[in-house]
Amino acid sequence: MDINEGKPEIHAGLEGIYFTESSVCKVDGQQGRLYYRGYPIETLANSSNFTEVAYLLLYGKLPTGQELDAFDAQMREERSLPGEVIAEIGRTAARAHPMDTMRTAISMLSAYDAEAYNDSPDANMRKSIRLISKSASIAATIGRYRSGKLYVAPDASLSHAENFLYMLSGEKPDKVDARILDVMFTVHAEHSSNASTFGVLVAGSTLADLYSSVTAGMAVLKGPLHGGADEAALRMMREIGSADNTERYIDDALAGKKKIMGFGHRVYKTYDPRARIVRSYLESLLSSPYEEQRNLAQIALSAEKLMIDRLGKAKGIWPNIDFFAGPVYVSLGIPAEVFTPIFAAARMAGWCAHMLEYWKSNKLLRPLEYYSGQLDLDYVPVEKR
Amino acid sequence: MDINEGKPEIHAGLEGIYFTESSVCKVDGQQGRLYYRGYPIETLANSSNFTEVAYLLLYGKLPTGQELDAFDAQMREERSLPGEVIAEIGRTAARAHPMDTMRTAISMLSAYDAEAYNDSPDANMRKSIRLISKSASIAATIGRYRSGKLYVAPDASLSHAENFLYMLSGEKPDKVDARILDVMFTVHAEHSSNASTFGVLVAGSTLADLYSSVTAGMAVLKGPLHGGADEAALRMMREIGSADNTERYIDDALAGKKKIMGFGHRVYKTYDPRARIVRSYLESLLSSPYEEQRNLAQIALSAEKLMIDRLGKAKGIWPNIDFFAGPVYVSLGIPAEVFTPIFAAARMAGWCAHMLEYWKSNKLLRPLEYYSGQLDLDYVPVEKR
Repeated sequence: MDINEGKPEIHAGLEGIYFTESSVCKVDGQQGRLYYRGYPIETLANSSNFTEVAYLLLYGKLPTGQELDAFDAQMREERSLPGEVIAEIGRTAARAHPMDTMRTAISMLSAYDAEAYNDSPDANMRKSIRLISKSASIAATIGRYRSGKLYVAPDASLSHAENFLYMLSGEKPDKVDARILDVMFTVHAEHSSNASTFGVLVAGSTLADLYSSVTAGMAVLKGPLHGGADEAALRMMREIGSADNTERYIDDALAGKKKIMGFGHRVYKTYDPRARIVRSYLESLLSSPYEEQRNLAQIALSAEKLMIDRLGKAKGIWPNIDFFAGPVYVSLGIPAEVFTPIFAAARMAGWCAHMLEYWKSNKLLRPLEYYSGQLDLDYVPVEKR
Repeated sequence: MDINEGKPEIHAGLEGIYFTESSVCKVDGQQGRLYYRGYPIETLANSSNFTEVAYLLLYGKLPTGQELDAFDAQMREERSLPGEVIAEIGRTAARAHPMDTMRTAISMLSAYDAEAYNDSPDANMRKSIRLISKSASIAATIGRYRSGKLYVAPDASLSHAENFLYMLSGEKPDKVDARILDVMFTVHAEHSSNASTFGVLVAGSTLADLYSSVTAGMAVLKGPLHGGADEAALRMMREIGSADNTERYIDDALAGKKKIMGFGHRVYKTYDPRARIVRSYLESLLSSPYEEQRNLAQIALSAEKLMIDRLGKAKGIWPNIDFFAGPVYVSLGIPAEVFTPIFAAARMAGWCAHMLEYWKSNKLLRPLEYYSGQLDLDYVPVEKR
């Protein structure tokens, strides 16, 4: 008898399985196109800003001027953190993984929200705004405490990205830097049902509340197969040290079958459109007055050229957003350990947008395991084992 | 043109889709059988205990006497909680949802584990034992603080269930009560790829660490479609008030299409085998010296009889474990708000067992959404909207 008789098809990783319809985001991996609510990412990066993009993701349409002003005002008001959350970040930021500290901080927020247990659509929208705003404050505060400095309270007169840089550095931010960071927030805000967004929906599909659901997202995003590749790619660039060493490093790595972080993507089989946007900022660093920035930009661009030459057309392995993000963040004065927290704070917009959409026609997400073990074993008392 | 042309099949809720093989647990929903690692749940409830069952789930085999002694000693040693975790429970237990407090407490644990970032199989086994042991202490401490009393430190001379009752009540526990609670832990320890276990695997599949993964499980378990049904069923029994009212209440509820908690199950299409085990303890409450306990038992058993009569054979809706659990917990002096935390503390064993197994042949869990929105929308500047 065939032992596999009756064995169902197993969809490892659920790859290729569709679990829902969504109108939040289209990723066209073949053509290298990305749309939020129907708008191409290039247009949003060029013409919009993160606050408007967060509105677009949550509400499904661009705001009027009045709607945008009201939304922006709410976002600015919601930046402050409960004292106990600041204290918890202070206790653990210096020694714990920043994503652990941030996961706990996000989880704590529910205890300080009077609307935590109001699950009406209106309350969920307000909680989404709260979470998008406060998660940026949490990410900045983690970076602040990790560098051994004191907490900086948010400043409501600043834009979302300006305020992030201010809470991180304690200094009045440069407008150009803030604009670049705003684009980084925008391009990280959403990416269809990636693993963390899927994790949010798995939690919310049991009708767990929004804080619980996004805490699940934080837990998923910690994994190095999802978040953290930008930090790893930057580490590699620093290991390479100078553009002259790039070819030897890359060829050694490829010969040793070492994974090169920031290349290849489960969905994109061509150039990641977000990588192209971030790359344009990286190019401008070639003429930076700071040697470290010029050097990192040269290494990144030479490594990209080599990798495309070696693997791009032949194997369909192209640079993704994570490859170029690190040197750009460094140029903004952002330390590597805050990269994934920024990713989380930006993706919070996409998580909430997906959750609010999924709840409109909720269905518990519960796939099956195929049991491949034994049955009806005899229990032998411990004395006789 | 058919607008659905090219539209893929959508597996709503991922129902009926197999995503992995597992040898942890078999749920036979047609026959009403449940096996942990091949052993029928009835045998384990009768002959084993939660500590041995946790070993069985984690290691895939029953321990020898020596192995069990070593494992039990580790479990006893790991009961203590970091001071900051106790303080956080104290700050929020009285006003936050107990599953919110517990989710944050579990998330915090990583910051106090020197092995948090050691992902070797041996370290993951030690972390599993730590999590199974400490999660029970967290659940008991939440119950303790909610009743306005002071923290009770664990007592390593007591069994797992005895210690739980001791940390909850502050009193030396009754042996019979502890034995019943131990069976409740055993029957809640594992249930295949239910939503929370699936959530743990979604997080861990990105190679997020064990603490992050089980925090995702906590987030999922909070939802009323997963955890919390035992609490809701108990609330209904208290609303019914006395066995004489049961028939009118049930028929009114059925006529009004009101959902009756504790009946029906996504997998079991017959009597839930765990419900049968818990029901045997409930029956013994019919002769309890306490009127409340006799009364709840009478209501539960009369409601069960009516529901089976009205819906059982006709619609395949049978009582599940949640229906009988509440009155049994009440008889052990456990308040309703601790039911789901106990579920979480028991299921921690199953979550860790599944995660350790999944990591042996890990694959990122990332299904697809079908995009049903528009494309290439024109961006109109805000001034012109």
